[in-house]
Parts: sequence; C-alpha cells; structure tokens
Amino acid sequence: MNNIIQKLKQQADFIDLPQNHLANLLQDPDRFSKYSLKMPGFFYDFSRQRIDESTLELLFHLARDKKVVDCFKAMVGGEKINLSENRAALHTATRDFSGKSIHVDGNDVMPQIRKVREHIKLFSERMHAQKLVGTTGKTLKDVVVVGIGGSYLGTECVADALLANTKSNINLYFLTNVDPSDFGRVIGHIDPEKTLWIIISKSYTTRETLANENLVRGFLKQNGMDPSLHLATVTSMGSPGDNPDNPVLACFHMFDFVGGRFSVSSAVGGVPLSLYLGFDVFERFLQGANTMDQHAANSPVSENIPLIAALSTFWNKDFLGYPAMGIIPYATPLRRLPAHIQQLHMESNGKSVNIHGEPLDKPAGTIIIGEPGTNAQHSFFQMAHQGPAFPIEFIGVIQNPYAHLDASYEGVTNHQELWANLVSQSKSLAEGKANTDKTRFFEGNRPSSTIILNNLSPESVGMLISYYEAKTVFEAFLWDINPFDQFGVQLGKTIAKTVREKMLARNRGQADMPDPDPIVKAYLDMLGEF
Amino acid sequence: MNNIIQKLKQQADFIDLPQNHLANLLQDPDRFSKYSLKMPGFFYDFSRQRIDESTLELLFHLARDKKVVDCFKAMVGGEKINLSENRAALHTATRDFSGKSIHVDGNDVMPQIRKVREHIKLFSERMHAQKLVGTTGKTLKDVVVVGIGGSYLGTECVADALLANTKSNINLYFLTNVDPSDFGRVIGHIDPEKTLWIIISKSYTTRETLANENLVRGFLKQNGMDPSLHLATVTSMGSPGDNPDNPVLACFHMFDFVGGRFSVSSAVGGVPLSLYLGFDVFERFLQGANTMDQHAANSPVSENIPLIAALSTFWNKDFLGYPAMGIIPYATPLRRLPAHIQQLHMESNGKSVNIHGEPLDKPAGTIIIGEPGTNAQHSFFQMAHQGPAFPIEFIGVIQNPYAHLDASYEGVTNHQELWANLVSQSKSLAEGKANTDKTRFFEGNRPSSTIILNNLSPESVGMLISYYEAKTVFEAFLWDINPFDQFGVQLGKTIAKTVREKMLARNRGQADMPDPDPIVKAYLDMLGEF
Repeated sequence: MNNIIQKLKQQADFIDLPQNHLANLLQDPDRFSKYSLKMPGFFYDFSRQRIDESTLELLFHLARDKKVVDCFKAMVGGEKINLSENRAALHTATRDFSGKSIHVDGNDVMPQIRKVREHIKLFSERMHAQKLVGTTGKTLKDVVVVGIGGSYLGTECVADALLANTKSNINLYFLTNVDPSDFGRVIGHIDPEKTLWIIISKSYTTRETLANENLVRGFLKQNGMDPSLHLATVTSMGSPGDNPDNPVLACFHMFDFVGGRFSVSSAVGGVPLSLYLGFDVFERFLQGANTMDQHAANSPVSENIPLIAALSTFWNKDFLGYPAMGIIPYATPLRRLPAHIQQLHMESNGKSVNIHGEPLDKPAGTIIIGEPGTNAQHSFFQMAHQGPAFPIEFIGVIQNPYAHLDASYEGVTNHQELWANLVSQSKSLAEGKANTDKTRFFEGNRPSSTIILNNLSPESVGMLISYYEAKTVFEAFLWDINPFDQFGVQLGKTIAKTVREKMLARNRGQADMPDPDPIVKAYLDMLGEF
Repeated sequence: MNNIIQKLKQQADFIDLPQNHLANLLQDPDRFSKYSLKMPGFFYDFSRQRIDESTLELLFHLARDKKVVDCFKAMVGGEKINLSENRAALHTATRDFSGKSIHVDGNDVMPQIRKVREHIKLFSERMHAQKLVGTTGKTLKDVVVVGIGGSYLGTECVADALLANTKSNINLYFLTNVDPSDFGRVIGHIDPEKTLWIIISKSYTTRETLANENLVRGFLKQNGMDPSLHLATVTSMGSPGDNPDNPVLACFHMFDFVGGRFSVSSAVGGVPLSLYLGFDVFERFLQGANTMDQHAANSPVSENIPLIAALSTFWNKDFLGYPAMGIIPYATPLRRLPAHIQQLHMESNGKSVNIHGEPLDKPAGTIIIGEPGTNAQHSFFQMAHQGPAFPIEFIGVIQNPYAHLDASYEGVTNHQELWANLVSQSKSLAEGKANTDKTRFFEGNRPSSTIILNNLSPESVGMLISYYEAKTVFEAFLWDINPFDQFGVQLGKTIAKTVREKMLARNRGQADMPDPDPIVKAYLDMLGEF
C-alpha cells in the first residue's frame, strides 16, 4: 500500500510539470471519451481532472487493494462498519425495494423499514385527501419541519430540487436554529389552525430541537390548538418523542443504523417530502437513489462513478494539495445542494483518526463551498480563475423543468445561455489564456468534473443524492476513516452544558459559580447587561 | 518591508511551538482585555487568534509601513485607487452625511449622490403611501429585484438581517439566475397586477439580467401589464436601461466609482431596501455604515477594528497557512451574510497580481464558508474541531429582535441557549481537550475571533456590512492588490460568447461552425438531443 502512495506522490510531481498542464492533457482527441462514464440518466465527465492514464491506474490499483467496492457491499449488506459506535450504516436499505432480507444482529431490518414507508404513504395520502384537520376543523396545509443539521438539510435540498413537483396546496417551512428569530420568521408565514409541526430528532434529546418544540407547544396553547392534532414526530422507537403519555398525531420511527446526514431517504426526509410532494414522488426519489446504490455496489472500480469521483477528491486533496472544492449546480433548484454536501462530506470525513482510532498522517476532508451557477460566476469565481485554485464539480441539467416558461433572448434561450456558461467555465478554468498583461493572464490548469443529469425528475435527484452519499463513503474508505461517527461535536456540547448551568444559576438569582475562564464570564456578563 | 515579512515568518515558526498553543496563550489573565476592542455597539474580540504581543507589534509595524490607514483615507477622499480601471472607489460616499464635498476629476460627486438618495426617498414614500398603482389600478406590493452578483447579494443579506423591520405589506423577491427555474419560482409567488420589477445592472449589458428582463417583459405583455407602470431600473446614467424611448416607472442612477460588491449602500441596495423596509430604516443603515467608515479612516492602527481583522486574515493565510475561514453568525437573520462576504472577499481579493500588475509570490485571498450557528455545529463543525483547521469569525447579538417570542426551556431561554453555544465553540476550538482515546481527542489551537453587536438594528447591520467592506479593503492593501477590479471573470465570458454563437447558428439551422474543441461540441450535442 505504501508503495502505491509513494508512486502517487511521484506521479503528483510529474503532473505538476508544465508539459502536463491540463491544456496539454486535453489535446488528446480521445480524452473526453476515455475520461467520462455514463449510466442511464447520469453522465460523469472527469476529463478536466489533472490525471493521466498512469495516475488513473495507480488510483484504481489503490482502490482495488483497499477493496473499497467490497467494503461498500458489506455496508449495504448490513455489516457493522461503523466500528466506533458498533453500528451498521444502512441508509441504502431505506430505498431497497428488492424484497430481500438485510440482517443486523441476526434480525431482518427490512420489515420495519417497509412498515415505516407504508406508514408515511398512508399518512401523506390522508393529508392530500384533506382528511387531516386541525383543532378548529380546518384542513392542514402548512407543514413545518422542526429539526437541525441532518434532520433538515437533506430535506430542504430535495424539496427545493423538486419544486416543480410540489402539491400546490401544501407549504413547507423549516424551523432549525434555536435563535427565536427563526421561530418568529416561521410563524409570520403559517396559519396556526392549518399547521402540522413535524419534530425530528433521532434521540429526542437535541437541545435546539427540544427548545423549539417548547416554543411550538407554547404557541399551540396560546392559539388554543390541541398538540395531538398539530404535532407529529420522527424519532427512534421508545424515545421521549415516542411516548403515549404525550400524544401526537403520528410518530414515525427512525433507526440507529441511519445517520442524520444520510437520512433524507428515511422517515426524516420521507415524512415532509411525501407531504410536500406526494408519496409517489418520494418513492420515485427512493428508486433513483437505489439505482445509484446498485451502481456503486456492483460496478467494477474502473466504471464506478462515485468511486472515481472519490478518487479525484483523494488525489486532489492528498497529492495535489487542494484544501477545498466547489459544487456548482447550473440549476437554481439545486441551490441548497452545496450546503447539504458540505455537511455530508465535512461531518463525515473531517477527521484526524483512522477507522481503528489511530492518528492519520494528516487530517482527512475537504472544505466544500458552492452557490448555483451562473450566480457563482458573479461572486467567488474571480478567485477560482485567478486566486488560490480549488477543484470544482459542475452540475448541468439537460431538460429544464421550467422550459415552458423559457424564451429566446438575442436568438438563444435562457436555458441555452445557462448551458453555454456551464461549458465555458470548465474550459476556461482548465485551459487558461496567455496574456503579457498579467492582470488579464489566466494560468488555467484548474481541475473540474462535470455531472450531467437528463432532468430534475425525482429519480434524477435521487441518483444525485445517492451519488454524493456513495462518494462520501468511498472517500472515507480511501482515507481509512469512519464516515459515520462525529465525536468532534462533543466537546462544544460538554462546554455548553457547563455554561448553561451558570446561566441557570444566574436566572435563579443564585450566587455565581466560580469560573476559571474569565472570557466565558465576560461574555455572560455582556449578555446579562441587557 | 521584506525585513518585517522575514520576521513574521520566524514569528510564525515560534507561534507553532507547543508552548504557544492557544490554551497557553489564554492563560494570561489580561488576554481578553488586551486583545479586544470596543466601539459603541460593536465589540471585537481577537483573544483567540494565534498571536502574541510580538506578532501584533510586527503586524502593526507592517500596517504602518504600508500606510494602510492613509490609503483608506485616500480612498474615502476620492483618490483613484482602482488603478487598473482608473477609477475612484467611493462606496463610502454613498453613506456620507457630512455635507462636505468629495472630488473626482475635479467634480464634486456628493450632489448627485444626494440627488439619488432623495429620489429613492420620494419613490419609496409614494410606494408606502400606496400611490404606486399598476395597470389595473391595484396598489403595488410585490417587489422583485432582477439582478445577479453584486446587484442582489448585499441586498438579500441586509433584507434578511432587518426582517424584524419590514413593512408588513411589502414582499421582496430576487430573480437572479438565468435558469428559467428561477423565473418559475418567482412568478409562483407574485401577483402580476401588483408587482414592481427592479432591473439592476450598472452597464445594463449583463446577459443574465437582460435575458431575465426579456422574460419579465414577455410576462407583463402576456398579462396585459404596461411596462412603464411595473418596471424600474437601477443603472448608470445613459445606459440602455436609462433610455426615454423605453419608458419605465423610475430610473435610479449608479456610478462607476461604486463596484457591484460594494454597492448595497448605493441605489442598488437603496431602492429595494427602502421599498421593503422604509427609507428611514435604509437611512439608519447608512448611518451605521458611515460610523464604521469613520472608525476605519480615523482610528490609529492599534485601535482600528477592521484593520486588525484584516491583519488576522493576512497572518492566518500567509504565515500560519490556513487556506479558508468560516463566518458563523449566531443569528438566523444574518444567514446570507456568509454568501455576501464570500463574494466581497473572494471577488475582491482572489488575485495573483499586485496593484501594479506584477505577479505575487503566492496568490492572495481566502476561501469563505459559513452557515448560521448553531446550525453549522450540526453540519460542518466536525471538521472545524477534528479535521483540517480553518479560522472562524463568530458573530453574536446581545438583544434578540424576537425576544418577545422567547421562552425558557429547562430554565434557560432559547436566546441564552444560542449564546451558551457561541461562547462554548470558540473556547473548545481554542483549548481542545486531551484524551487517550484519539477518536475523542481535541487538539485545539484553532483560532477564532468574535464580533458582538448590541442588536440587529439598522445601524448595527450597517456597521457590520461596512466592517466587512473595510476589512476587505485593508486586506487588499496588506497584500498590495487592487480589490476593485475582477478581470478573472472575463475569460469565461469570452468563451461563452463563442459557445453562444454556435448555439445561435444551430438554432437558425445554419451549418455548424467548425469547433476545435471536441468537448464543447459534445456538450452542445448533448443539449441538442433534447
């Protein structure tokens, strides 16, 4: 293994030579066909990555040595690959329609997954049949997701992406932050008599979510609304959110083998997305995700799209030294995809220890940024072209879901304009342009990949989300890390608990506890002044 | 100068020694008072930056040698510091209420600035007095900004930040991307009879904006609306958007001495923000911005908040080697601040040549990411704590604009919970925590600064935006670059023009022009198939 790493380092030095500038690599007339892959509805072009055939061979060799496709299959099969938490990682099972069993600790998990899907189907059908009515007899039509991090980012991303498929009478909002401003914004939009609040927390101990549930319950009480008609929960079986003494309209179960950031295809995404879009749309989304899961689990290394994408992350970060990457969808409906993938990648792979808890030579993970194109061209692309370089993953969509609204301006449609820009950015980043005026000089040699979707159908969006999940997992396998734990968020929580106790003591007029940290004390005093 | 740079490099090696871990630097009981600054309503804490007194002395020395405060004053005074475009950079003049003259090319620019402000005032007062009526006699109440990049990001950021101040009857939307989905989303919200479209483009040649204007004009026609009652423009005097042959309801002028990303205090932000919030609120925003401008122009190096913040960017990037920074506002209304500052910083300072057009030793500029806290804690903060490190700028707000909605959960209010998290994150990042289990080990030594605003009043938000503008300009002065040009966006535009011509030829059924680039051709074919 070390031998391959050594060779990859030499290869990086070689690729850094001027003759291997991307403009030169792209001279090969077969470059595009050799460095692109297609599956139905999903095209992946890595011709503008700074790799040549030797690089690719070494990377493939590494992937085979590390048996990453076998590891992926083991994950899909229910093996407890989340070693630090002794758990399986079965987000893929939430979109498995094969009818086969998947065993964890000797138990088939599929019956309970199917049961939850059926529960979501029936519940959303009742909603769309206008059979869910609030305290005053009015039909429920405003849906508010109350959750943070993995409990909303994927849902927000997919809800936006499938905007063209919405049930026109249902509105969807997100109450995420513990900042009361967030609550203030949401209640400015909804009608309390017609609102269903969905509280989402696996453990039902997430403080932000519980503090918001508290505001919601107060708001319901103040408006004379019965919580058992206006609240639903998505949580683990037996959690405080699944307590018959505290009746809610419905409680949907989630499982410890699906992590928050991988949970959009579970009840976490399933309940709000089915209410917003219809269960049929959500099911098509799941089918798309499943198609990509199968591709990732069954394609050989050299034809495996998310694996090759993961190899490019690995190569760009560890060997070419790029600390960040951009995700730029040329499709406004994908505007929250970068934030979702920022979480998915950085929370999964921003690690300093390997799967066995041993320190890595250097920390893993890449910073993710992104805004839709062409917006990003008018924002941070100055740096992408002439500042410190970072690789970019472009996303294009062939059929525009709003094509019926499009028109020609100076002979080309707006969607063509969008496409022209997509094509031109990757070309200019790769090739650059000489100029004796250094202010107008473009060094080029800036790598990118391009994903093309046929459309923004639920299936396509499902494939895209599953592509990023598989890519993230493959990256972790290449870095030898566990992408499913997140111990890095613990210390802040522990310290916050101490600070909260001090606040509580102050609120109760108790004498201050001694504080060894003068800065914490100063900040508590600052807040106390008001 | 090189001597100081050399000393700073040595200083960085010294700071990297284990004994200078932030946990140790923070042992100094006076650390907080020595490494923080306060002006009315704005507190800046840099006690958790990886600097000591020698570092600070060297950085101050450098700032004095480079005369950065004098340069800032020269900018405010109208000097043409944008050398490559031979222009002044007078965004600060748009919020100057001193009554003094500012000359560019011998002409006082203030009368025209005051005239535009007066125009905005009168127009927005007419709107709020319900005197602006559409074609069918209905009062205008939906406002759509049509613009991209600097023509909307600042406005979106400030409109969100001041949400608590909105005129309740006015809605504000943004049509930015050339993707028809963006247009489809916007028309799903508005009532064509009651809508004012504000087309914003300095040159009125921005293709995305003109292609969207074309869709808007088609939409108006289709709905039987008179453009001269439903369109306004913000553009340069005499541009195609300021053409009496194409009558609009109002045309507001912008000037070549205010760049797009610095334009939120000009008519670009002024028109939509005054319509959405009231001119009085916009004027208070300007006054806040002016307060910070004066602080930046008149404070000595060692007391100059945006300059010290710029020195920390410079130190972190060039000497400690951090490629990115996070901006994390613990206030949901500031949720689009990171995107605005991402543009402001990366488009201004993502450069490879100095102010004289000579190559820099290494490119300038830092990657900016950000989401609101605590949301970010549940997303990418795993990496901030245990992955590759990046400095963070935290923002806290003492008085919550929605305090009247707040409640206690387990004895602390939601706003206190937010504050407890803010305080705990900076502490845990800096100090870390030992653990023999390396999975639960926190190395700490991760730098951050914290900005505290008293509130989210228009004045405070004005100070915050102006702080970032001044910081960006000071960073550029330290890097010896011109923050006001953006030649890096040109190459993509040039290539897009060629691609567009090919599309046009195809649309017209003309034979394809020969294309030397097989990849561009492949992508055009791909789009053509549908």
